[in-house]
Amino acid sequence: MNQKTPLETTFGSISPAEFFYRNRQMAGFGNSSQAVYSTIRELVENSLDSCEDAERYPDVHIRISCEESDILSVRVADNGTGVPAEYVPEAFGKILFGSKYHERQRRGTFGLGVTMAVLYGQITANSPVLIHTRSRNTSGTEYTLFIDVESNEPLIEATNLQEREYEGTTITLRIQGDLKRVQERIVEYLRLTAVSTPHSKISLDIDGSETIEFGRWSNEIPPLVLSSKPHPRAADLELLRRFMQRVGNKRLQDFLIDSFQKVGVKTSTRFLRFISFDPNQETNTLTRDDLSRISEALRKYDDFESPDPRSLSPIGKSPIIDGLNSTFNVSNIHYSIRPPSEWQGNPFIVEGAIVLSDDFARSEIPTLYRFANRVPLLYDSSEDVMTKALKRINWKRYTIGASSPAALFVHLCSTRIPYKAAGKQSIGTISEIENELLYLFKELGRRFNKGLRKEQRSVRESKKMREFARTFRNLVKFSADLADFEGIPKTSHLIQQLFEVASDE
Amino acid sequence: MNQKTPLETTFGSISPAEFFYRNRQMAGFGNSSQAVYSTIRELVENSLDSCEDAERYPDVHIRISCEESDILSVRVADNGTGVPAEYVPEAFGKILFGSKYHERQRRGTFGLGVTMAVLYGQITANSPVLIHTRSRNTSGTEYTLFIDVESNEPLIEATNLQEREYEGTTITLRIQGDLKRVQERIVEYLRLTAVSTPHSKISLDIDGSETIEFGRWSNEIPPLVLSSKPHPRAADLELLRRFMQRVGNKRLQDFLIDSFQKVGVKTSTRFLRFISFDPNQETNTLTRDDLSRISEALRKYDDFESPDPRSLSPIGKSPIIDGLNSTFNVSNIHYSIRPPSEWQGNPFIVEGAIVLSDDFARSEIPTLYRFANRVPLLYDSSEDVMTKALKRINWKRYTIGASSPAALFVHLCSTRIPYKAAGKQSIGTISEIENELLYLFKELGRRFNKGLRKEQRSVRESKKMREFARTFRNLVKFSADLADFEGIPKTSHLIQQLFEVASDE
Repeated sequence: MNQKTPLETTFGSISPAEFFYRNRQMAGFGNSSQAVYSTIRELVENSLDSCEDAERYPDVHIRISCEESDILSVRVADNGTGVPAEYVPEAFGKILFGSKYHERQRRGTFGLGVTMAVLYGQITANSPVLIHTRSRNTSGTEYTLFIDVESNEPLIEATNLQEREYEGTTITLRIQGDLKRVQERIVEYLRLTAVSTPHSKISLDIDGSETIEFGRWSNEIPPLVLSSKPHPRAADLELLRRFMQRVGNKRLQDFLIDSFQKVGVKTSTRFLRFISFDPNQETNTLTRDDLSRISEALRKYDDFESPDPRSLSPIGKSPIIDGLNSTFNVSNIHYSIRPPSEWQGNPFIVEGAIVLSDDFARSEIPTLYRFANRVPLLYDSSEDVMTKALKRINWKRYTIGASSPAALFVHLCSTRIPYKAAGKQSIGTISEIENELLYLFKELGRRFNKGLRKEQRSVRESKKMREFARTFRNLVKFSADLADFEGIPKTSHLIQQLFEVASDE
Repeated sequence: MNQKTPLETTFGSISPAEFFYRNRQMAGFGNSSQAVYSTIRELVENSLDSCEDAERYPDVHIRISCEESDILSVRVADNGTGVPAEYVPEAFGKILFGSKYHERQRRGTFGLGVTMAVLYGQITANSPVLIHTRSRNTSGTEYTLFIDVESNEPLIEATNLQEREYEGTTITLRIQGDLKRVQERIVEYLRLTAVSTPHSKISLDIDGSETIEFGRWSNEIPPLVLSSKPHPRAADLELLRRFMQRVGNKRLQDFLIDSFQKVGVKTSTRFLRFISFDPNQETNTLTRDDLSRISEALRKYDDFESPDPRSLSPIGKSPIIDGLNSTFNVSNIHYSIRPPSEWQGNPFIVEGAIVLSDDFARSEIPTLYRFANRVPLLYDSSEDVMTKALKRINWKRYTIGASSPAALFVHLCSTRIPYKAAGKQSIGTISEIENELLYLFKELGRRFNKGLRKEQRSVRESKKMREFARTFRNLVKFSADLADFEGIPKTSHLIQQLFEVASDE
């Protein structure tokens, strides 16, 4: 047996495609049911991101058909921006290829998800990916390609001009997979996606036999999410050095103003005085130690403004309420949103809704639905920061418990979600995020409690009103009889008026 | 504010260094306490891997000193093989650079851990890494380097010949970190490392004031772990295609015999008959579809032998018992090991020990200590396959419960551990692994139960023996008195004999 001793081991580097090919469970492609779920999820998320860039109502069609034994064919079509033809090969055939330097909320992380689906399809089903796309001012192109795993480069099998009716992208690929074991999860995923992106319409067609539709639940198209310059607290040494190289020599003060969000003349002057640097010093005279001092100070200085929330897209009160009402049988919806905050310079917002419904489990703590950048997270909840925060709240204080089954829909949006793994199922514990979640949960608890008490009071009020009304009616009838009045005088509006005065007090 | 609309977004690729710089929480470097833990862990694991390659007793010295405010200096020195000078820059300055195509048990995954520590040090503490190493037939070299994150290439600051007393490597770097919050975890990690690698000696020196030593608990050096050819069930299409390209044209049968472990003339003949391929077909005449059919068949064919366990290094019964006895106050140790098995063609073995001790929590289920390739896993236990399997066992059946506090030490070793994230804290659910764990747990439960009953029986026996002995002594004394015998005749050996006969029956 041709075995090597360790000392003969040769060294070398591997491509990112090779790394994720070897460790595909890290990206959510560990087994054949997980892989089906992740494939659908990554394709749908790409579609929704692209539709939001196009500022259209997303219209996403998913078709899954079972081919021979355990091979599935998956097709996802959208009406997004499409992908410019020159970028198609790398966008779908190279791992870690994506849009550069964006600092804005996106569902996708950097160029990993869809290429993982392509990679998985080619190694399990010997299938290339078929991309049919039409971007602005073009009429359509079709590509068929594989990924060369060792070099991490696209291997184009075929390409031709092919008209597409409207702008957008259609991806078709075949993967090995066990649909039965994940079909319910996929449906749940899409149902919740329509809650968190309620202006979208999604249809799922399985084997041509069954079509399930989700949405559209809201007509509000969220404002376009803008890219922004980084917040100064994101300026670690690497970022600072890189920015200086990129922009060339400048006055230090101008460099700060030009490079970071919400840093103007006033803020930069105060900051530079604080760290005793001359605003006129030229950046090319700064040593690595200077940069290190500046970077450390940028991250610790307390007086920067809070980050620009225009790079974020929270769902918002009425869209989420529309989504929840259309999807679940709920009552007593309460919504709350926290002001923008930042973790390591990345802006984020947490928002959420708490509802009462017999649809959910009767438990001491509310059933938790997690969303990150509008993506529902269905796996690996137990180590998630949202679960941790949920468990730290004493829900009994808010009259939430086994007798009133509640569910909590929580959304974290950020220019960067600190996922624990490339499979994007669980959010790591970042203390700034955990703290904001605790505030949000308490606020939602208070509103829920107040609402419940108000409802109980209103039940009591109605009962009182009904009894009062009966007595009043009898009295009026009696008086009318006494006065030989014809018929029974109407009293309901009088009672209504009386009670309105009472509850306005 | 210089903001871009999404349509102006530029595309591009990022290096693996950039990916993990942006997503450092995925590799265990998410915050300043996690980062300290991961730094120590990655350096120690590298050291132990290297010492095992050298077939020496590992001797690893760790020194952590707190410098200004939140900056720590970390140094780890070992007596391993050292790193050949020409590989130093890339091995420490390039992410995803490592030893190629090894199929054997290692603590490290592929060239990620230590380079992450280097990256973290340079962005948080402006510190290069200092590598002082001596490999076979050299006298020592010293390198100082950073990583160029954008290009993922080493940036060498200095290099010079520098004698080192003995073979091995010393790494020194500075990182931002919160030692207080993780010091206990680090000690726990090293304590458990000395249990799972009981032939090693590890010392931890904190701020020059305190030195803690762990091991050596066993004198058994484990046999050298051998690289092996892949098992045929690992042959996905990618692997098959790559192997064929590498070896050039061959008879199909020869290709199979040369490429995979435990495939000889007999097995390959049977297999090729099963899939109706001519053994004499030349590999360069195979189409992509042929390869796909062969690969699918290789993964599904039932009659391959089980994988070669020489690429694995289980801890073994007496070393783990020595380690446990030296570390905990335990009794009733029971050990069990499962035969080699495979997941997706990767050989693995699970082994474990169950112990009784008042050191552990009184709980309905045993306290679980997880190990993967001899590495203790201290974080993110709740989604781990070992935890899942643990919870599926009805421990009461084995008289394990709150009255007998038990702990379970479980070791999974494999040529590939399916970690859920690059931070290597949690093992994904692979059904083959879960099944083997269930068998192991049941076997350990049975042994524990049997041991406990035996002990209870032996307690009863001793009591019976003591009472019998007393009566017997009195009787003998009385008879001696009656017979006017001088002194009291010795009886203990007679009683012993009687009881030995009784329990041998």
